[in-house]
Amino acid sequence: MEAIDFEKSGGYVPVIVQECESGDVLMLAYMNREAWEKTVETGKAWYWSRSRNQLWMKGETSGHYQVVREILIDCDGDALLLKVEQRGGGACHTGYWSCFYRTIRHGKVEVVGQKVFDPREVYEK
Amino acid sequence: MEAIDFEKSGGYVPVIVQECESGDVLMLAYMNREAWEKTVETGKAWYWSRSRNQLWMKGETSGHYQVVREILIDCDGDALLLKVEQRGGGACHTGYWSCFYRTIRHGKVEVVGQKVFDPREVYEK
Repeated sequence: MEAIDFEKSGGYVPVIVQECESGDVLMLAYMNREAWEKTVETGKAWYWSRSRNQLWMKGETSGHYQVVREILIDCDGDALLLKVEQRGGGACHTGYWSCFYRTIRHGKVEVVGQKVFDPREVYEK
Repeated sequence: MEAIDFEKSGGYVPVIVQECESGDVLMLAYMNREAWEKTVETGKAWYWSRSRNQLWMKGETSGHYQVVREILIDCDGDALLLKVEQRGGGACHTGYWSCFYRTIRHGKVEVVGQKVFDPREVYEK
């Protein structure tokens, strides 16, 4: 897919993941070319982990995978927006629906998100 | 704001910008510490341009600035979600409401977004 500029930021692009029904932004992840190809091929979201240097399918361990409904590309071709159906509990490994479960207000961090599963039950079995 | 990990990706963090009424994702931008401080201080969105190596206030030229309504931080502290009121025409310099005005479908790029202003009238006067 030559419209996507993977090279600009070292081989991967940031991917905004938005839940298609609620419009909630669930997470920010990254895709390299291989993650892109796996996503298109399977219809499920695959990402590139920058910390683990590894391709991963979202939900591989937790079962909380993401069915891709639409893929949008930005004006510069260096960022993607995935509209997904979030399956299973939620998107965040901490047990929250969205990774953006904390707000910053007057210099303080405050939890505002919804906890939807217990990560100990999902990841440590 | 020590909750934000500016150092992880070389001094700036990706910022997802979402319009607070519609839930539309408008753009992906970046903030360094200075852009963060200007945003908190003014209540308007300031970003760091990686290509121009420069601090900029969104809407500085176009008048299409963004009033910040809420700031959320992700689980890793290395990405922000700004909920904003988009003032003026739209967020994208190409004249579209959102920078994500194109979809990728079956290997083809297709315009699906809404054009809301003529960039020649906004930027070349």
